[in-house]
Amino acid sequence: MQVNARENERIDNIGFGDLKLIQKPDEFCYGVDAVLLADFAAKCEPKLAADLGTGTGIIPLILSAKAKAEKIAGLEYQEGSFDRAVRSVELNGLSAGIKIIRGDVKDSAAIGKIATELGIESLDGDKNGLDLVTCNPPYVPFGSALTSANEAKAIARQECIASLDDFVAAASKLLCRRGHFCMVHRPSRLADIFCALRAHNLEPKEMTLVAPKPGAEPNIVLIHAIKGAGAELRITDTLFVRDESGEYSPEIDRIYGR
Amino acid sequence: MQVNARENERIDNIGFGDLKLIQKPDEFCYGVDAVLLADFAAKCEPKLAADLGTGTGIIPLILSAKAKAEKIAGLEYQEGSFDRAVRSVELNGLSAGIKIIRGDVKDSAAIGKIATELGIESLDGDKNGLDLVTCNPPYVPFGSALTSANEAKAIARQECIASLDDFVAAASKLLCRRGHFCMVHRPSRLADIFCALRAHNLEPKEMTLVAPKPGAEPNIVLIHAIKGAGAELRITDTLFVRDESGEYSPEIDRIYGR
Repeated sequence: MQVNARENERIDNIGFGDLKLIQKPDEFCYGVDAVLLADFAAKCEPKLAADLGTGTGIIPLILSAKAKAEKIAGLEYQEGSFDRAVRSVELNGLSAGIKIIRGDVKDSAAIGKIATELGIESLDGDKNGLDLVTCNPPYVPFGSALTSANEAKAIARQECIASLDDFVAAASKLLCRRGHFCMVHRPSRLADIFCALRAHNLEPKEMTLVAPKPGAEPNIVLIHAIKGAGAELRITDTLFVRDESGEYSPEIDRIYGR
Repeated sequence: MQVNARENERIDNIGFGDLKLIQKPDEFCYGVDAVLLADFAAKCEPKLAADLGTGTGIIPLILSAKAKAEKIAGLEYQEGSFDRAVRSVELNGLSAGIKIIRGDVKDSAAIGKIATELGIESLDGDKNGLDLVTCNPPYVPFGSALTSANEAKAIARQECIASLDDFVAAASKLLCRRGHFCMVHRPSRLADIFCALRAHNLEPKEMTLVAPKPGAEPNIVLIHAIKGAGAELRITDTLFVRDESGEYSPEIDRIYGR
């Protein structure tokens, strides 16, 4: 099938085994956060995974390159991003393994559709569920100063449509017992994150802070929670995007497959 | 007044303006955690402060050297440590500024006694309260394998007598609105810590992870919460005890006053 970029869109070659991604720079382009999350989550070796608020599908795409999942679903609320995600999956010939669904994390029909697309008849919160959910949610709490007058950007960045709690609640519903939830967020929201996870039976088990360089304060946090696990968090050493000389760190080069 | 060490005790010269401390090595000796906490808390520039589970009084003593508090109270449950704390305060000639109280953080009479010793007639959770509470609590949850067959060590290290929640609840009762709570703990307990803080209206505002050296995982966390504050956490860059060459880091030398 021929897939083309539309007006104000572009097709980027993003690596990871020659993946291509359709993006519309006016609305939203993925950042290092999404790449870090996909790599962080790939360690969980999922069979059935979903990405909530998938945007243009960047996380399912990278995850499919980094992990041998049977099927990955991506849920997206915004029509433009949803449509670009569907076309990017086609463009990469990955429509058999990646299913993009349009919907809202707060809507139980959308949650049910993810399960159906992944071949799960009925989510029971125990054995019948996904083994991985990923999420790169909007970072800014609703009610803070708007991050963008552009509606598409605002929804991607701020909790206008769905809150942190909404994303975490949806993840918990989708996961099987001992299933994995991996999220990327801002360190400033860490108390919100831990309290939301615990409220939905997801126990934080591993956390990696990401800082621009040694000596700088972290500006990204990666969290790995396990449904129904006991309390004990491992905090890894901090991941630095660049080393002291200003070059990308070896870990970042590994994550980007360079 | 002549203050002497008793059987199996020793008097250590611990620095910080020539402070002396009576310790009983069979029971418990302070570690880097207490020193880090006292330095971390001194930034709050308290007038009226209390240290919960003060042990031999190490935190009130260092805090009195690092901050110009009017009065500092220390609450200790164990008779032996309480007694050594009282004698150490006398030994340093600090009995006017540091009041050591024997009691349990769960006991409202003990909380009331702290307030009285600091000249607060009645704690109202608003204007009438302390401006700083510090705590270096037992790190190990009750029910885990006992850390020590020695009862004094076990109580100092494990939540046998008082839990994390008990310490946090007591801190919240003692503090005025916008008062500061500073705690040192293990990173593995971070979700427990944030949930306990929020349950008692203490919002985590700053966190510093402490690691033995660059590249190693952190094994200590310093938390600064403010009563009734809005949600937004600052995570500083990690503090390394030693640098890459194995020498104490400049920050540790500063904290120890070397």
